[in-house]
Amino acid sequence: MIRVSIVGGTGYTGVELLRLLALHPEAEVVAVTSRSEAGRRVDDLFPSLRGIVDLEYTDPASSGAGDCDVCFFATPNGTAMHQAAELLDAGTRVVDLAADFRLKDLDVWQKWYGMPHAAPQLLEEAVYGLPELNRPAIREARLVANPGCYPTAVLLGFLPLLEGDLVEPDGLIADAKSGVSGAGRKAAIATQLCEAGDNFKAYAVAGHRHQAEIVQGLRSVTGHGIGVTFVPHLVPMLRGIHATLYARLKHADVDLQDVYERRYREEPFVDVMPPGSHPDTRSVRGANMCRIAWHRPGGGNTVVVLSVEDNLVKGAAGQAVQNMNIMFGFDERAGLAPVALVP
Amino acid sequence: MIRVSIVGGTGYTGVELLRLLALHPEAEVVAVTSRSEAGRRVDDLFPSLRGIVDLEYTDPASSGAGDCDVCFFATPNGTAMHQAAELLDAGTRVVDLAADFRLKDLDVWQKWYGMPHAAPQLLEEAVYGLPELNRPAIREARLVANPGCYPTAVLLGFLPLLEGDLVEPDGLIADAKSGVSGAGRKAAIATQLCEAGDNFKAYAVAGHRHQAEIVQGLRSVTGHGIGVTFVPHLVPMLRGIHATLYARLKHADVDLQDVYERRYREEPFVDVMPPGSHPDTRSVRGANMCRIAWHRPGGGNTVVVLSVEDNLVKGAAGQAVQNMNIMFGFDERAGLAPVALVP
Amino acid sequence: MIRVSIVGGTGYTGVELLRLLALHPEAEVVAVTSRSEAGRRVDDLFPSLRGIVDLEYTDPASSGAGDCDVCFFATPNGTAMHQAAELLDAGTRVVDLAADFRLKDLDVWQKWYGMPHAAPQLLEEAVYGLPELNRPAIREARLVANPGCYPTAVLLGFLPLLEGDLVEPDGLIADAKSGVSGAGRKAAIATQLCEAGDNFKAYAVAGHRHQAEIVQGLRSVTGHGIGVTFVPHLVPMLRGIHATLYARLKHADVDLQDVYERRYREEPFVDVMPPGSHPDTRSVRGANMCRIAWHRPGGGNTVVVLSVEDNLVKGAAGQAVQNMNIMFGFDERAGLAPVALVP
Amino acid sequence: MIRVSIVGGTGYTGVELLRLLALHPEAEVVAVTSRSEAGRRVDDLFPSLRGIVDLEYTDPASSGAGDCDVCFFATPNGTAMHQAAELLDAGTRVVDLAADFRLKDLDVWQKWYGMPHAAPQLLEEAVYGLPELNRPAIREARLVANPGCYPTAVLLGFLPLLEGDLVEPDGLIADAKSGVSGAGRKAAIATQLCEAGDNFKAYAVAGHRHQAEIVQGLRSVTGHGIGVTFVPHLVPMLRGIHATLYARLKHADVDLQDVYERRYREEPFVDVMPPGSHPDTRSVRGANMCRIAWHRPGGGNTVVVLSVEDNLVKGAAGQAVQNMNIMFGFDERAGLAPVALVP
Repeated sequence: MIRVSIVGGTGYTGVELLRLLALHPEAEVVAVTSRSEAGRRVDDLFPSLRGIVDLEYTDPASSGAGDCDVCFFATPNGTAMHQAAELLDAGTRVVDLAADFRLKDLDVWQKWYGMPHAAPQLLEEAVYGLPELNRPAIREARLVANPGCYPTAVLLGFLPLLEGDLVEPDGLIADAKSGVSGAGRKAAIATQLCEAGDNFKAYAVAGHRHQAEIVQGLRSVTGHGIGVTFVPHLVPMLRGIHATLYARLKHADVDLQDVYERRYREEPFVDVMPPGSHPDTRSVRGANMCRIAWHRPGGGNTVVVLSVEDNLVKGAAGQAVQNMNIMFGFDERAGLAPVALVP
Repeated sequence: MIRVSIVGGTGYTGVELLRLLALHPEAEVVAVTSRSEAGRRVDDLFPSLRGIVDLEYTDPASSGAGDCDVCFFATPNGTAMHQAAELLDAGTRVVDLAADFRLKDLDVWQKWYGMPHAAPQLLEEAVYGLPELNRPAIREARLVANPGCYPTAVLLGFLPLLEGDLVEPDGLIADAKSGVSGAGRKAAIATQLCEAGDNFKAYAVAGHRHQAEIVQGLRSVTGHGIGVTFVPHLVPMLRGIHATLYARLKHADVDLQDVYERRYREEPFVDVMPPGSHPDTRSVRGANMCRIAWHRPGGGNTVVVLSVEDNLVKGAAGQAVQNMNIMFGFDERAGLAPVALVP
Repeated sequence: MIRVSIVGGTGYTGVELLRLLALHPEAEVVAVTSRSEAGRRVDDLFPSLRGIVDLEYTDPASSGAGDCDVCFFATPNGTAMHQAAELLDAGTRVVDLAADFRLKDLDVWQKWYGMPHAAPQLLEEAVYGLPELNRPAIREARLVANPGCYPTAVLLGFLPLLEGDLVEPDGLIADAKSGVSGAGRKAAIATQLCEAGDNFKAYAVAGHRHQAEIVQGLRSVTGHGIGVTFVPHLVPMLRGIHATLYARLKHADVDLQDVYERRYREEPFVDVMPPGSHPDTRSVRGANMCRIAWHRPGGGNTVVVLSVEDNLVKGAAGQAVQNMNIMFGFDERAGLAPVALVP
Repeated sequence: MIRVSIVGGTGYTGVELLRLLALHPEAEVVAVTSRSEAGRRVDDLFPSLRGIVDLEYTDPASSGAGDCDVCFFATPNGTAMHQAAELLDAGTRVVDLAADFRLKDLDVWQKWYGMPHAAPQLLEEAVYGLPELNRPAIREARLVANPGCYPTAVLLGFLPLLEGDLVEPDGLIADAKSGVSGAGRKAAIATQLCEAGDNFKAYAVAGHRHQAEIVQGLRSVTGHGIGVTFVPHLVPMLRGIHATLYARLKHADVDLQDVYERRYREEPFVDVMPPGSHPDTRSVRGANMCRIAWHRPGGGNTVVVLSVEDNLVKGAAGQAVQNMNIMFGFDERAGLAPVALVP
């Protein structure tokens, strides 16, 4: 049984970690921190955890997170980078669910996140925690940068095409749609039920931080000029991401079903759907799974890939637990059994 | 490992049974029937079960349900009554999630359900499967009538008040609100997203079948004149029931918190919230739990009880699994671990 | 053409006033104030008003609201009471959509609203703006207290029963459900889509400010001991209130359909539905209308009244325009033509 | 005052026509037909129309639609083509809201709609009723084919780019998202609240009928090889279409804001938003308006156009009324005043 701490346990990824880890056979959460809720019982803020989580929020300053085997940062961007080094020195492994260690290029990071990086020396060591891409490195990692929700869905959808050099890499389009929980649990006008409900819109079309992460991930495969247009949208639902990906095939005669199935055959958390499928986000609601299907409309050279995940699970907390399992040599599926909730 | 069959596995209670039993350590589903979908893979109809359930729907006529230790009927009303006797004779225990065996009074049943009962001889033997009321009888039962979703929430809310003779029994009001999944999975206009979405309404105010079941349940405690007005409403959400119950206290000086806590202290699936709480339906989304709180507005003699459950879990499939656990001597919590999905 | 100003035009009742007044043949909005958005175009904040409203928000201090024939306060509680006297002195009539002038009893007001009243001298003059109750007084009023959303639905539902002395006045129950826009347009956690969406809960069961207003309204009819238990709930929808009202009939033989139809025959904005109806909130979405139906479940002595309205229209801005029409001698229906939006 | 009939008045486009025409100063609906609901009052089926529409549904066979100046077909595909000729012969103009007369190429129509066309002789005469493209022809038309909901949003978004020869015409992508009312008012499983609610999915990716209509519309501008990939998605909301359009610019230095503003300057129902805007669907909820904005992510050569409309208004009934106004020489805005309902 390893000891786990969660820094920032009042947001949606924090409470999702608590939900998943409650059933984990090898890990026990011993501390959950929150600056604003220190001293309050976790199950007072989240009654869904009554009888499940018997902890109070503690102040980050005194949390003793260093006394754990692994520490999850479920904090806003720019938090983990201030604390990771100390934890690593104390022998605690770190999984950051925010963006602090996702980008290798310091300048790109600082441009997109609008602040100086507090721990640039850790950028190289940090492993980008997409198991389907970096499992061996994750196994050895002290510091894992858990991928963003959009990049997970987009990368898993595009990877087989780029790895096989099957599509033109410079005209990719990722039209992505996310449930509102992707915006986090915070008081804001734009994500009020009366603003986001019964409504649909694109946002950040001019440029979204996750694009840099997507480009970096795709370049790790192709090594050269990736051109991708990424447009996120807000869907009036709680959870779920649906990425609709467009690319131009280089060759007409390719068995795409075979390409995808071979690529993900051994992956426990990527499901290639039968030909002609239209995965829906609810099919992964609450589950650590990315479901993928592809189409060639009219039999033409444009391939359309549909990729769905629960942004809080495979797009965040579930993937973080998956990474922890890999880091500690557990069964990669441990604690990730919950079946999607339908309806 | 007991062998389980499900008759009628294409509806919401059927697929919920599959979700829950997939994680059950002592039970294996070996057959799922459907007249309309016979021959189709279950996970083709419900992709959320891909990799979880490896079964095809079979025709009810040839399902071999009798070869199982227990058979769940997740069928419309009026189905189980035709098949239960034969199954029982073959030594298969039966849990009916529909209403066929819920009412003891044949005439009342036939009036409300508008058909002759096909197995009146089983009505007496059938045990009303509310564990918090009938656990000893359930333990011995061959045939369990799983309670309706509304009655479960209403009865668990009212029972402590009536058992303690604390309220006037003839002026009870149960104002209940249900998510749309309570209407089942069927093509209908009224439950289209564009009809029930962003909308709220009462229905069946003149009289709803579940009222007879509520009255029977309350009378089993008081033995005398229950008067209850039951008004159901349709909420634009997927799952969840919220019952708001009103009663007049007989005496002003009663410690209601103590009454509820003592009544349900040993119950694994009833949670008495702290004083002043407002349980919300999402706190039990996907979980086999009924959460209850009480209020005395203005300190007066009217007590308001708030009772929430997931209509598909504690209000249907979860309670059915709970009953199975009791019937077969398993840990009552077996297979019922999933934590509520929030958000 | 009268000149209209709106104080506090960034909230839902403010923008609803703008929507309705845009089509009003006799009134022109000449000023909309907002402390936080002064200088910003209204249609930049609300693109739905592009081409409809050609105004900028002005600072309340310099708004020149006094230069208008009527001023609507679409502000939080406690704002209008500071400015009303000066406006009235300047000859501007005032309609307050907040609660400042709704209660006649100063102590009760100060207890519920938790602040000293800044203009107690106006409480007696202020007319409670429920046209169906106070039309003659509204016609002469300088200062109208526009009713709360819940009280409008509850009072219109109960009035015929109490005016006719048909029910026991001391055991009334008002179980009310509101869409989330009732909470206003503000950054808050509880009304985020991910908190209030796909969820249902009661709130403020121990006591809600609108109860005092309901009691006052009912007492204005009966003159004596009203006992009403009022429980509000939050529905995952944008607009709409559904009040489910319970009362005990004094006499069994009363033609309730006739009672309601006679009471509201001349009312343009109350619709008594046919016997057996279940009004839904969408049937009044965007329309200035309250639809009412009654039931006697099982033919008993409990009468259940269903009353629906759009909380932003008949429950707020529409009723305010209706009051303005009465105050200025316009056709009471002027500007209130929009048909409910279904679906 | 012209006399109007509606064939098929029980669906969402039918009831939307009734809502809009109720306020039309020059048109009166004198007949609404429905095979299934003949004899029933319209406001019994749609209580939102109580006091607004005083009609009963009549049987199509005896409706006397021919006695009208104009007849709207709000019917399933394949209905209008059987009745249009007779109506036209009788001097009644026809606006078909379904697809019967949208495609000029008989073979393409028959392939996509899977039936022989019953009135091919009318295909040439029929005018494709997109006013922004065909206003002069609509003015003279006896028979107008009202555009599909998706094509309206997609064509209005792409037209300025193609008319100006500004983009590569053979690699267009239209990623479109629709509220559920686009599927019509019918009993179906897939559009149940519990199936489509809190869920998101693509559908018909392999090929959707509206693609042929989009291609035809774009070709009418370019005259040559259009290549467009069209992927529709289902959004858990009632109304609204959001089209996200992608194209490659031929030249980097083009003032797109100017292009769009000049193109639509005189159009009453197309709104070009300020640079950098993200139109949301609710901003046109209930209003006959298409709002458009464009972006060039990262300043590159890919242009992203965002185009929103209410699928039932500018995408159906509102556009039909707009066409009627043009055909009869009315003010094009007549009856189309309602302001979008926000929230």
